[in-house]
Amino acid sequence: MGSFANSSRNGGGGGGGSVDKGVDFAQYFCTYSFLYHQKEMLCDRAVLDVGTGSGILAIWSAQAGARKVYAVEATKMAEHARALVKANNLQDVVEVIEGSIEDITLPEKVDVIISEWMGYFLLRESMFDSVICARDRWLKPTGVMYPSHARMWVAPIRSGLGEHKMGDYESSMDEWSNFVDETKTDYGVDMSVLSKPFSEEQKKYYLQTSLWNNLHPNQVIGSTALLKEIDCLTATVNDILEVRADIRSSITLENTRFCGYGGWFDVHFRGRKEDPTQQEIELTTAPSVDYGTHWGQQVFLMHPPIHVSDGDDLRVSFSMNRSNENHRLMEAEFHCEIQQTSGKLIPRFSNKFYIE
Amino acid sequence: MGSFANSSRNGGGGGGGSVDKGVDFAQYFCTYSFLYHQKEMLCDRAVLDVGTGSGILAIWSAQAGARKVYAVEATKMAEHARALVKANNLQDVVEVIEGSIEDITLPEKVDVIISEWMGYFLLRESMFDSVICARDRWLKPTGVMYPSHARMWVAPIRSGLGEHKMGDYESSMDEWSNFVDETKTDYGVDMSVLSKPFSEEQKKYYLQTSLWNNLHPNQVIGSTALLKEIDCLTATVNDILEVRADIRSSITLENTRFCGYGGWFDVHFRGRKEDPTQQEIELTTAPSVDYGTHWGQQVFLMHPPIHVSDGDDLRVSFSMNRSNENHRLMEAEFHCEIQQTSGKLIPRFSNKFYIE
Repeated sequence: MGSFANSSRNGGGGGGGSVDKGVDFAQYFCTYSFLYHQKEMLCDRAVLDVGTGSGILAIWSAQAGARKVYAVEATKMAEHARALVKANNLQDVVEVIEGSIEDITLPEKVDVIISEWMGYFLLRESMFDSVICARDRWLKPTGVMYPSHARMWVAPIRSGLGEHKMGDYESSMDEWSNFVDETKTDYGVDMSVLSKPFSEEQKKYYLQTSLWNNLHPNQVIGSTALLKEIDCLTATVNDILEVRADIRSSITLENTRFCGYGGWFDVHFRGRKEDPTQQEIELTTAPSVDYGTHWGQQVFLMHPPIHVSDGDDLRVSFSMNRSNENHRLMEAEFHCEIQQTSGKLIPRFSNKFYIE
Repeated sequence: MGSFANSSRNGGGGGGGSVDKGVDFAQYFCTYSFLYHQKEMLCDRAVLDVGTGSGILAIWSAQAGARKVYAVEATKMAEHARALVKANNLQDVVEVIEGSIEDITLPEKVDVIISEWMGYFLLRESMFDSVICARDRWLKPTGVMYPSHARMWVAPIRSGLGEHKMGDYESSMDEWSNFVDETKTDYGVDMSVLSKPFSEEQKKYYLQTSLWNNLHPNQVIGSTALLKEIDCLTATVNDILEVRADIRSSITLENTRFCGYGGWFDVHFRGRKEDPTQQEIELTTAPSVDYGTHWGQQVFLMHPPIHVSDGDDLRVSFSMNRSNENHRLMEAEFHCEIQQTSGKLIPRFSNKFYIE
C-alpha cells in the first residue's frame, strides 16, 4: 500500500511532490479491485499481508472471508493499522504485527500471501526481497501469492522533457563557468580543476537520472518489449538482483524523434497452476489516458534524440543492477543499435541511468 | 563551506531547491572576506579547517600565510579538495585529510581552528559538536577560533506565507474527507478513525514546520531579541544541546499583524581576549535587502496571526531542543504573552515548531 495517503513510502508530509492525487486515488482502488472480487481464494484461509501500511488490504482480505489475517508492518504505521482494524470491528480476524517480516514469527503457516511491494519500474525499493523471505518462511507448499506474476516492459518514446533537462544542465554549467572566472580574478583561487567533476555531477543529476512521468500513449513510438517476467511463487532474490535482456522494438511512427525509453510494469493475479483463479486480473502501469497510476512510468532520456521512422528496428541490450551505495536504488544501462528500413545501420550507442 | 556549489550539505544534485544562487554567491564571498583580510592572524601558524568541503577556506588560509593547514573532510569531497589544493600549488602547505574530526589524528596541535559549521538558525545540523571536539583535541591553549563568537536572534514578523500554508493544509484535509467518504460508501471500510492522526500529521507538515525565507527588513515588526550567545573558545556540547531564553520585544509598527517569529544568527571574528583581531569582522544573516545569505532566516508562523500595534510588549519564553529522531534537527517552542499599550493582557499562548 505504498501509494496510500498515510503510507510511509511517501514520507511524513504527504503533501506535494509529483504524485497526482487523482491518479493516486484511481490506482488505490485499482489495487482494491484485484483483491475484493477474489473471495473464493480467501474464504476460510490464513492470509499474510507483507507491509500492510494502513492495513487496508488486510481488512479487505478479512471482509472477503479470510479466517485469519496477519498484517505485518515494519513502521509505526502499524498503530494506525491496528486502530483501523478495530474501528471496522475486525480485530478478531486481523492481527497487526509491528516488525520486519525477516524478524517476526507467526503462529502458523498461511494459505495466501498478499503484498503491494511494487516500486517504480517494479523493482525500485527492493521490497520484493521481503516478500520472498515471507514466502519461504510462512507460505504453505500449496499456498498462493497475490500478485502471482510480474512483468517489466520497455518501449522507445518521444518526449519534450529532455530539452528542459539539457537546458537546466547548461544553465548550471554557465553559472559554474562565471563562478570559476570570478574566483580566479577576484579571489586568487583557480577552481578550473573542478570543472570536469562538477560537470559530471551535474550531468548525472540532470541528464542521467530517470524521471517519473505519466506518458501519453501517443508518446510511445515503437513496439513494447518484455524485459523480465517474475513468477512470485518461485523467484529468488538472486533472480531479481540483476535484470538483463536483449530486446527488439520496431518504430511505428513516421519521421519522429527517438528521445529515450519508457519503462513500466504489470502484475497478475493468476493463483497457482494447480489452483488457478477463476478470473485472471491484471494491474498494469502502462501509459494510459484513462487509467494512470501513482507509479506512472520511468523515462530514460537520451541527449540528443535520434531521428527514426516507421519500420526502423531497435536492438537493445538492457541491464539493471542495484546501486552499490543503496540497494533500494537502481542503475540501468541501454546499449542500442538501429537497423533502418533503408538498410543503414546506426552503430551501437550506450546510455547509463540512475533510478533514484 | 556548506553553501558552496559542490558541497555535500546541499546533496549531490546541486540544482533546484530554495537556494537563490545570487544570494548564495554573495554569501560565499562574504565568508571569504572575513578570512582573507586577517592575514596577521594566520602568518606562520598551524591551522585546522573542520569540514573543509572543497577546501576553499584552507586554501585561503594558506594564501594568507599559514605555515601548515590541516583540511579535514568526512566525505568524498576530500578528493576534490586535494585536487584543488594541488591545482593552486599549495600541496606543501595544505594537507587534506579524509575522515571524521572525531577519528583523525594530527601530527601537532594548531594555533587556529577555522570552520564554517553554521546551519540554518545557527545550530541545525549540530555540526558545532565536531568543532568543539576539534578544539578540545587539537587547539593549543593559546589558540584562536574563527569564528570566535556566535549569536542567535529572534523578532516578531509579518508574512503572507501563513495563509498559503493554511490553505494547503485545508485542501489536504478536504481531500482526506472525500477519501473517507468514498472509501466507506464504495468499498465498505470506515477510515474515519484515522482522521485525527491524519490531521495531526498534516498540521505538523504544513503549519508547524519552520520555513526558510529571505525576509525583507520591513517584515520585522518589533525589536530584535538575543536568544543565545556562544563563545566558541569555551562552549561545551552541553551548552548548545538546549537553547532557552526569556525575551521581550516591543512592536514598532502601528496596526499590524503579528504572524510569527523570524530567527537568524550572526558570527564574529574577534580572536581571543589576550590576542584580539585588529579589526572585528561580523557575518550576519539578519534580514537585509542588499546582503542576503543562503542561510536566509527561519520563520515560525502562527495560525491565525494576532493584531498588534506600536508599543505592544511581547514577552516570550523560547526553548529549542534537538529532535529525538535525528539529533541534527531541532524542535522549538515559543510561549508568548502580550502586554498591550492599552493595558490589556493577551494571555500566554504557545506554539511548537519543527526545524526540519
